[in-house]
Amino acid sequence: MKHWIAFAVLAGAFAATAPADEGMWTFDNPPIRQIQEKYHYTLTKEWLDHVRLASVRLNDGGSGSFVSPHGLLLTNHHVARGQLQKNSTPEHNYIRDGFYARTQAEEMKSPDLEVNVLMSTEDVTQRVQSAVQAAKTPEQQFDARRKIIAQIEKESTEKTGLRSDVITLYQGGEYWLYRYKKYTDVRIVFAPEEQVAYFGGDPDNFTYPRYCLDMALFRVYENGKPIDTPNYLKWNPEGARDNELVFVSGNPGSTSRLDTLAQLEFQRDSVLPDYLTVLKSRIATLRAFSATSPAHAQEAETDIFDYSNSEKALEGMLSGLQNPRIMQTKRDQEEKFRAAVDANPDWKAKYGNAWNEIAAAESKATTRIKERFFHAMDSRLAGIAMTIVQYVAEIKKPDGQRLPGYHDSQLESLRFDLFSPAPIYKDMEIARITGALQLDLKEMGPNDPFLEIVLGGKSPDQVAAWLVNGTSLENPEARKKLIEGGEAAVKASTDPMIVLARQLDPMRRDYIKWMQDNVESVEQRGGEQLGRARFAVYGRSTYPDATFTLRLSYGTVKGYPYNGTEAPPKTTFFGLYDRSADFNHQHPFDLVPRFAEGQSKLNLATPFNFVSTDDIIGGNSGSPVVNGKGEIVGLIFDGNIESLVGDYVYDIESNRAVAVHTAAMTEALKKLYDAGPLLTELGQ
Amino acid sequence: MKHWIAFAVLAGAFAATAPADEGMWTFDNPPIRQIQEKYHYTLTKEWLDHVRLASVRLNDGGSGSFVSPHGLLLTNHHVARGQLQKNSTPEHNYIRDGFYARTQAEEMKSPDLEVNVLMSTEDVTQRVQSAVQAAKTPEQQFDARRKIIAQIEKESTEKTGLRSDVITLYQGGEYWLYRYKKYTDVRIVFAPEEQVAYFGGDPDNFTYPRYCLDMALFRVYENGKPIDTPNYLKWNPEGARDNELVFVSGNPGSTSRLDTLAQLEFQRDSVLPDYLTVLKSRIATLRAFSATSPAHAQEAETDIFDYSNSEKALEGMLSGLQNPRIMQTKRDQEEKFRAAVDANPDWKAKYGNAWNEIAAAESKATTRIKERFFHAMDSRLAGIAMTIVQYVAEIKKPDGQRLPGYHDSQLESLRFDLFSPAPIYKDMEIARITGALQLDLKEMGPNDPFLEIVLGGKSPDQVAAWLVNGTSLENPEARKKLIEGGEAAVKASTDPMIVLARQLDPMRRDYIKWMQDNVESVEQRGGEQLGRARFAVYGRSTYPDATFTLRLSYGTVKGYPYNGTEAPPKTTFFGLYDRSADFNHQHPFDLVPRFAEGQSKLNLATPFNFVSTDDIIGGNSGSPVVNGKGEIVGLIFDGNIESLVGDYVYDIESNRAVAVHTAAMTEALKKLYDAGPLLTELGQ
Repeated sequence: MKHWIAFAVLAGAFAATAPADEGMWTFDNPPIRQIQEKYHYTLTKEWLDHVRLASVRLNDGGSGSFVSPHGLLLTNHHVARGQLQKNSTPEHNYIRDGFYARTQAEEMKSPDLEVNVLMSTEDVTQRVQSAVQAAKTPEQQFDARRKIIAQIEKESTEKTGLRSDVITLYQGGEYWLYRYKKYTDVRIVFAPEEQVAYFGGDPDNFTYPRYCLDMALFRVYENGKPIDTPNYLKWNPEGARDNELVFVSGNPGSTSRLDTLAQLEFQRDSVLPDYLTVLKSRIATLRAFSATSPAHAQEAETDIFDYSNSEKALEGMLSGLQNPRIMQTKRDQEEKFRAAVDANPDWKAKYGNAWNEIAAAESKATTRIKERFFHAMDSRLAGIAMTIVQYVAEIKKPDGQRLPGYHDSQLESLRFDLFSPAPIYKDMEIARITGALQLDLKEMGPNDPFLEIVLGGKSPDQVAAWLVNGTSLENPEARKKLIEGGEAAVKASTDPMIVLARQLDPMRRDYIKWMQDNVESVEQRGGEQLGRARFAVYGRSTYPDATFTLRLSYGTVKGYPYNGTEAPPKTTFFGLYDRSADFNHQHPFDLVPRFAEGQSKLNLATPFNFVSTDDIIGGNSGSPVVNGKGEIVGLIFDGNIESLVGDYVYDIESNRAVAVHTAAMTEALKKLYDAGPLLTELGQ
Repeated sequence: MKHWIAFAVLAGAFAATAPADEGMWTFDNPPIRQIQEKYHYTLTKEWLDHVRLASVRLNDGGSGSFVSPHGLLLTNHHVARGQLQKNSTPEHNYIRDGFYARTQAEEMKSPDLEVNVLMSTEDVTQRVQSAVQAAKTPEQQFDARRKIIAQIEKESTEKTGLRSDVITLYQGGEYWLYRYKKYTDVRIVFAPEEQVAYFGGDPDNFTYPRYCLDMALFRVYENGKPIDTPNYLKWNPEGARDNELVFVSGNPGSTSRLDTLAQLEFQRDSVLPDYLTVLKSRIATLRAFSATSPAHAQEAETDIFDYSNSEKALEGMLSGLQNPRIMQTKRDQEEKFRAAVDANPDWKAKYGNAWNEIAAAESKATTRIKERFFHAMDSRLAGIAMTIVQYVAEIKKPDGQRLPGYHDSQLESLRFDLFSPAPIYKDMEIARITGALQLDLKEMGPNDPFLEIVLGGKSPDQVAAWLVNGTSLENPEARKKLIEGGEAAVKASTDPMIVLARQLDPMRRDYIKWMQDNVESVEQRGGEQLGRARFAVYGRSTYPDATFTLRLSYGTVKGYPYNGTEAPPKTTFFGLYDRSADFNHQHPFDLVPRFAEGQSKLNLATPFNFVSTDDIIGGNSGSPVVNGKGEIVGLIFDGNIESLVGDYVYDIESNRAVAVHTAAMTEALKKLYDAGPLLTELGQ
């Protein structure tokens, strides 16, 4: 779960009361009835309060939980990575080598980590909606909403001293005030070596079976002392059992479960296949470039890694959307939802046409979506040139009339990026432009207007060399000069990249406007209507899309069908040693010395990682897996490849959360890390 | 590789010189050039002769090899299963418990196992084709071919004393006389317990990663003594290395690599999805029936197992055909092949239209294929009734005019089946007919002519109960009486199953005739043309479809992309213990006591199973994996799930042969089976 991908194209129609095990539920509206019906277990207020107060949000993007009365906070190695990095020195690489503070004095401060505990929540929907309804125009309503939210937050902070955030749920169906206790003195206590935390590396990322000790421990301090709290999860060293009902309490980042079937089909049939065609071509170009020299290989390395990672995530999503069972689930949900809307004349009038409008927009988008992917040059220099050409024109306009990306609030980071002195490798630029234009030609044909402008009868490699060799935009000073010179300077420039960007600019503007008018605005309006419709139909009988706020998931420890057979509910340390030996211990399947040498000390049958049907997504990393007694039995660190489609649809058959088993953490701390005091603190 | 599925619907256009690692090559035409080009390794006549003479065909359906100078023959436990069964007694279950003869005196005779060693081959194409060409009509040609083949075989047997078979290669492009040394005194020496030979059971069957000791050893005797032979494969206890060039010498059963793209698309888009719909429905019906009582569960068990197994194999094939890369490979091959045919006016005239004719036939088939699957009652009793109704009519006709299945040569086994006293469970019959008719209704609609006849306005469950409760066909005597009474008795019968069969008979005949005239005859003619065309274009630069005769495959030990990550080139004993513990040692993931108790004796990092790119298929079970030195380094026992499409297309990216590593066999024999004398014989 290290790399999660979001799509600008995608807006938002999951609908139906959620089936068993589905949902990321708010703590004020937990799925008590569903859990009773399926599992004959009753969530109590005490359990909910205890788990909520033991759950922690790490504001650099993850979740965690208190596991001792003295502020010990458990999360993932990959969540702690940033803080480990910031404490590392040329002498000490704490990411790679791990860290263990045997005494509190040795614990290392995190320079900029804020963690939050959700103390209380309050429904402020009435207050926000009244204020908004009093306003007339959409602009006034926007301002009124912003104003009342700021006011509520300010009042609350002044009254309680707590961090106070108003959050929007159910696409505006509800507004809630969340009050957090905020801690900023958070110290690193323990992290294992990265190679055992992230065993299997990039290939195994997003997959299962897995063998990762992806854990880290912080300690939360207040006033220079470890906090003293009864709100921690008791450590259960036996860990999760097969088929056990288990809960996940954490902060899922975002989901798009309201996307309509038409939107998903558009993703499946157009966007994702085209996107993958581009990625595969880019990767092939970069690999060929890499092969030409070691220096080239180094220049291309990061991009190849990033593109490959995106390719894998997109393949997973596409594969999910291509699964007939998953699409049928979505279809059934949508039909039920539409029938419910159509059955109420008022709803039908207000919302009933949204599906058709979105579907019509997707049809239109299909006719021109290829231009997004294949009117492209894959060039940093060409990108800089286009930004300069557009910048000098846009900043002369009132803020509201500018192209996306050129609003006042965005200019600082735009300039930061535009004037970046990061080196641009001209050989690689030529290779990339050549590769991109060859792909464009193949996909769009030689009579495509974009290609007629760019190529002007020449071949891709000729044009690439002419553009890159002729430009001086690799020099940040040249860029600055054009920006400072404004429209006149840009108009007068003979830099071939700028000349080309000027020629392409009208076409680019036309495309953006066409997509906005015909597709994006329709999707946005439709999405809002469907959000309201869903709230009207289902109210709080379902759960809101994820918003990086505290949610509760539930499910059972359970394998799933995979690879023609069954993925097991759990793995063991045996599997770690197997997979490493299978690949002759070659990276990323190498064992850290502690594990290679310590094999005989371990009980190899100890459960290591496990999967459950809990509905999670990026942001849930580090979440505790909790049993019915409120004890911690596992630690979420990833989802399986089949869960990548979970952004849109939850599929109980194969969507699984992947967690580290507490038995493995206990065994490793005891036998390999000699972490006696830690175990004592965990009650072991 | 225990269950291989063949389709009557499928006839046979792979084409193109085979790409690297593809092909099941005859020993007289090995891919020397391809191996030199890719691997810089030269196959010598000595190597080929040695491997051929050490390779053995087991005539109950498998392959094997000699591994000692004293006739020790290595194959799979699942190939030896039949002979282990036949030696088992109420006291000794040799399949389950394994067997080890510590002395030659203890070796157990196989009651009916013949094994063959290919001694020589001779091209008899000229002789066969001359004889055939001398005849005029197709019938005379058929007879002439049969006669000349019998004559060649007889002459050879008389001259050499060897078993002599004329085999047809390249769809009649070549005829070869294969002479085999035949052994019938074959004794069982060693077999491990089934649960470690077939660890993971049905779920893991057809998959990888695997952990199976699927081996068995026979000894071949002649004149009451073990044979003495220099033609054995030297045992290499290190076994196959990653990326090593390895060969497989064995007897692949059958392939359909000549099927055209149109045929594959028809399978992908019509046959397989409909077939799977039927299987899933049948399984659901039987599961629901099972749940009603333990007796019902027992009645349904075998059918559920068989249907589930077919479902898995079909899912694998469908998934292969749905893979765009695989279909593109096929498309490229076909385009190249067609272009080559079209470039030669003579070939074009003779063969050039075959693809279009087959494609047109598949289009026609699409319009009526659903009737094959959804004009069905899933009933043994209804099947018996239809057989009786057709039997009494068909046997009055000349043999050549009868429906398929009613030819003189088929009548004995037809009657054997028809009069079988095997019990028919009436409750299950009612459940199955009800389930089948409900599915038919869903797929074909209520106005379908078949359903109008069968249902006559009643509901599926009413009709099912009425038919099953009213018939007496569960009694074999009742069937006999009808058969003996002939057409008159059948016409007079008021048994509801017979009445219904009489009503359905004309429709059934019409369907069979329509399919024969419009589809099957076209496919057969087209298939023969394409076979000849392929031989004309490529001659012996490619390999013939598999014919359960000796073939050589080549490739490398190599993992493949799977499950979002990489399948390793090999597994180790660690993995066996992991997978067993992952499932809490529940069957079929239980460890046999010898392995459970002997864990500490084993070097767990020993390679256990491995995969290679060698092109194999059912029938190759038990084949040796041989290195460049002619040593045995592994033992084929299965293909991965991605290889199921290998019937039609070989895909180097993910099609893998799965083998037991010699290192694992050595380690297990030494540490767990205490098989000192065997190891000594193997030179260890």
